[in-house]
Amino acid sequence: MEFGMVGLGRMGGNMARRLARQSRKIAVMNRSFDVAEALVKETGHIACRDYTELVAVLEKPRIIWLMLPAGDVTETALSTLLPLLSPGDLIVDGANAHYQDDAPRAARCAERGIEFVDAGVSGGIWGLENGYCIMFGGSDTAAARLKPYLEVLAPTPTTGWLHTGPVGSGHYVKMIHNGIEYGMMQAFAEGFALMKDKSGFNLDLAEIAELWRHGSVVRSWLLDLSADFLAEDQMFDDIAPFVADSGEGRWTALASIEQGIPAPVIMLSLMMRFTTQGRNDYAAKMLAKMRHGFGGHAIKKGEQ
Amino acid sequence: MEFGMVGLGRMGGNMARRLARQSRKIAVMNRSFDVAEALVKETGHIACRDYTELVAVLEKPRIIWLMLPAGDVTETALSTLLPLLSPGDLIVDGANAHYQDDAPRAARCAERGIEFVDAGVSGGIWGLENGYCIMFGGSDTAAARLKPYLEVLAPTPTTGWLHTGPVGSGHYVKMIHNGIEYGMMQAFAEGFALMKDKSGFNLDLAEIAELWRHGSVVRSWLLDLSADFLAEDQMFDDIAPFVADSGEGRWTALASIEQGIPAPVIMLSLMMRFTTQGRNDYAAKMLAKMRHGFGGHAIKKGEQ
Amino acid sequence: MEFGMVGLGRMGGNMARRLARQSRKIAVMNRSFDVAEALVKETGHIACRDYTELVAVLEKPRIIWLMLPAGDVTETALSTLLPLLSPGDLIVDGANAHYQDDAPRAARCAERGIEFVDAGVSGGIWGLENGYCIMFGGSDTAAARLKPYLEVLAPTPTTGWLHTGPVGSGHYVKMIHNGIEYGMMQAFAEGFALMKDKSGFNLDLAEIAELWRHGSVVRSWLLDLSADFLAEDQMFDDIAPFVADSGEGRWTALASIEQGIPAPVIMLSLMMRFTTQGRNDYAAKMLAKMRHGFGGHAIKKGEQ
Amino acid sequence: MEFGMVGLGRMGGNMARRLARQSRKIAVMNRSFDVAEALVKETGHIACRDYTELVAVLEKPRIIWLMLPAGDVTETALSTLLPLLSPGDLIVDGANAHYQDDAPRAARCAERGIEFVDAGVSGGIWGLENGYCIMFGGSDTAAARLKPYLEVLAPTPTTGWLHTGPVGSGHYVKMIHNGIEYGMMQAFAEGFALMKDKSGFNLDLAEIAELWRHGSVVRSWLLDLSADFLAEDQMFDDIAPFVADSGEGRWTALASIEQGIPAPVIMLSLMMRFTTQGRNDYAAKMLAKMRHGFGGHAIKKGEQ
Repeated sequence: MEFGMVGLGRMGGNMARRLARQSRKIAVMNRSFDVAEALVKETGHIACRDYTELVAVLEKPRIIWLMLPAGDVTETALSTLLPLLSPGDLIVDGANAHYQDDAPRAARCAERGIEFVDAGVSGGIWGLENGYCIMFGGSDTAAARLKPYLEVLAPTPTTGWLHTGPVGSGHYVKMIHNGIEYGMMQAFAEGFALMKDKSGFNLDLAEIAELWRHGSVVRSWLLDLSADFLAEDQMFDDIAPFVADSGEGRWTALASIEQGIPAPVIMLSLMMRFTTQGRNDYAAKMLAKMRHGFGGHAIKKGEQ
Repeated sequence: MEFGMVGLGRMGGNMARRLARQSRKIAVMNRSFDVAEALVKETGHIACRDYTELVAVLEKPRIIWLMLPAGDVTETALSTLLPLLSPGDLIVDGANAHYQDDAPRAARCAERGIEFVDAGVSGGIWGLENGYCIMFGGSDTAAARLKPYLEVLAPTPTTGWLHTGPVGSGHYVKMIHNGIEYGMMQAFAEGFALMKDKSGFNLDLAEIAELWRHGSVVRSWLLDLSADFLAEDQMFDDIAPFVADSGEGRWTALASIEQGIPAPVIMLSLMMRFTTQGRNDYAAKMLAKMRHGFGGHAIKKGEQ
Repeated sequence: MEFGMVGLGRMGGNMARRLARQSRKIAVMNRSFDVAEALVKETGHIACRDYTELVAVLEKPRIIWLMLPAGDVTETALSTLLPLLSPGDLIVDGANAHYQDDAPRAARCAERGIEFVDAGVSGGIWGLENGYCIMFGGSDTAAARLKPYLEVLAPTPTTGWLHTGPVGSGHYVKMIHNGIEYGMMQAFAEGFALMKDKSGFNLDLAEIAELWRHGSVVRSWLLDLSADFLAEDQMFDDIAPFVADSGEGRWTALASIEQGIPAPVIMLSLMMRFTTQGRNDYAAKMLAKMRHGFGGHAIKKGEQ
Repeated sequence: MEFGMVGLGRMGGNMARRLARQSRKIAVMNRSFDVAEALVKETGHIACRDYTELVAVLEKPRIIWLMLPAGDVTETALSTLLPLLSPGDLIVDGANAHYQDDAPRAARCAERGIEFVDAGVSGGIWGLENGYCIMFGGSDTAAARLKPYLEVLAPTPTTGWLHTGPVGSGHYVKMIHNGIEYGMMQAFAEGFALMKDKSGFNLDLAEIAELWRHGSVVRSWLLDLSADFLAEDQMFDDIAPFVADSGEGRWTALASIEQGIPAPVIMLSLMMRFTTQGRNDYAAKMLAKMRHGFGGHAIKKGEQ
């Protein structure tokens, strides 16, 4: 057994399960050991309490796949792990980390003879059944070592995984993927909002979403998902008009600015999310004041 | 006395006052006669109860300047007025009407030998003191007849009024003016919102607005206005983040689409106003559902 | 034989072919008779030279499906056809017409006891093999009469066709579909442009498009298409950076403004197309002049 | 003499001239000594060949105002200067530096007992005559020492300069100023482009710009400038539709993303500049390919 999975959340846990289904036996570790133990009962994997145990359990050269929150948690994990590992071992960062963090991390690993791979993993909660779409950056050697696992994690042995290029490229491509996702989601949301608002036609959005799944130009997995939830409810009465944004949307927007390549639709999708978070309120108030200032237009009063 | 002003609201009333200040005596008329009577006490103009009286009071050839709400009200006024007027009379529509309505109206007038001028009037509640900026379309003859009044309504006899071209051009130019205004306002609102949000610097937005009025590239009348109200209050605690939009912003946006000329900033300024009106809520809820659907991300609950 | 197809272009011709494959025999008509004759040789349908012949050939109550260019061509066809038809006949307008034109057309038809259905048809050149996605507005009676043909035109008898509601709703839903399509396309284009530009990673866009088709959140038919053409060429050296826009994109943008529902992403997708058509050039020149005016920044000289 | 100005380009040179006009005698230094010598002949200032000479010429405690290109040039200047200076001296960075670079630089200065001030300077080539608008961050002590110079550089002794807050705040406020400027410029450019394109009215953009300067809501210094150049030429035939962008526009866009405050208009203004730089071409080509792929729409051929 050479492979350890660290971080058994929604993504890491199901990836471990998918490996188990195809008889890939691995070691698993999680901040709260309970989760690891529960997973082991279900999968037959081996649960480890900490990095020391994990490193001890795995045969050299090891592969340790981190599915931890990006940022400090991943950083701490790396600092703890690195001194425990041996030359030839391989660390995969499968989190949604910023791609510019990858090269420095790879350099730190390389100082100890350890390989580093950055992997972007798409598929969400559906990956367990459908397989994950995995794009990763690193050396050819590292890619070859990961192949047996990727063939199982991906939808099929030959599709849905790709060695995109050098370290950093996996997270970069995943970041762009998520930026595109922002734009596609916003496009659908705008279209359905227009239809919901349209008076006179009494359109059934669930039927329309289902319709478009067959033969239309907009058919897509996001539409499949939407057809599912619209079939249950299309009023959304108990949902707040609030949309969170995660790092990758912002990073794609930043990349557009840094590279000087216009990405107005991805950008606007992000701006609209900020707006739903109440982050446009001051600007709106200022506009109301300006209108009042030059035209005497009424200002709507609001509570603090 | 040849000149009648119809509609004594914020704009029309002050225009009548400005004419009085320069000893231009006119007849005035308003839906509620009280308003006309009050204005007459203040200005020495003559108040008329209805169009019949107005037409009777004015010497031929008459000039009747309408400052009525665009749409049905203006339309009804025209239908009532036209049969009462004589060849050679001149109607000015000073409302924010859509420029595409002007040519048909001019044609209806022309059938009776009556001139039609479309005038866009900017200046808001400040026009009384500063003078109005007036852009109008129509014939050279009509322009010559209006000149003595424009010289008084405008900031100075030689500035702030322009015969822009044929019928329709006045309202078109005013529409574009308002579109630009939307963009400028939004640009300021975004900048001040960023500064308000910025932690660590504790920026004083009133001081900054005042600063920029002197020597900066963004100095402008809208900034002058903003400096005034920011000096009184920059928290906006009792104001709702709601911004109305008027016809002209939408019309400029429509013109961009019809002409095929990109106007993304004017367009987005309008979209952001829609958003403050709660018109983005369904789209936001749909996005939240999609995120939940593919990634299991939490949905914020809201009341109906 | 009750069904006639008028307009045998890319869409109408293939729809006639798809009907033939399932042994639905129809009459076909086209501006140039050659095209109709050629199609008949291939399909066994019956070719008609003009509307008189078409109406004579079909049994009452007839169904005549128009796949003509929207606007004048469709208008002329309706004016020619209506006097020839009998009460109980049914006209389907399958063009990308503006939905607000449908109700008046339906009213004109109703005066003669003729049914009118507005149908939006998606599927492009792939519809022949995959089936068309058809959304239509009209009466329940009309819907029932169309059913046997829709079951064949659509991907399967039970999927890909929908009676969306009253007259106008079919074209409205198709218009929104195309608006969403604009947004999705722009999102993909932005993402791939960012990746193409990214230095250091030497990304293979064909491999990435193929990758994302499997298990990713952005998998979609547009991505399938893109993977196909990227596999052949991802340099695009001989293609001009010019993108046409059709009526439906503009109409969705107009609908956003008219309804007051923000659709910034669909809007921007349209604006970006205008930009590729050279329609941003004057604005750009004006910006260059302003920058020169306040900062002395250099202006790039260009030919007329 | 305590004050030295380093960097005699468009901004620094004119600032030195403005100081001279009010009898403020300073030392000046420039990469190429010729420029400094020429300025001295005109102003009576003292020219220095290098930092050693500059430091020797000035009395303690010195004020050294850098007007150098942001980035490496400013960085090198600081590294050279710091060892030459004495505790109590004051460095002002008047370049358009990124505000996040200021605190670390202030810390390096503080280690040697040297004050650091970040100053944003607006006014462009018009500052010499009109005065500069200056916003700066730093200590109260530093502000007091700069006051005599600011009173002369600004339009009047009491307007156009502001101590915005701690180190970094001056450049932050200047950055936002430039972001707003981007939005205002784009709004004007869009409006004038719409008017230029409008058929039937034959609008005279020079007359309209001049008109709006008087009494309109959009009156502003940018409009004054535009009226000037439009009066000379409104065809722009020999100008390329290319607009450069500078750091501050990008930085404001980045700040919007980092702060999570929507600034769609500022953002789009930047994206549109990228577009004029040919940076949208790949996306446009990809869109053309997609349209061809699904609908068989023609692709415009272009040269490589």
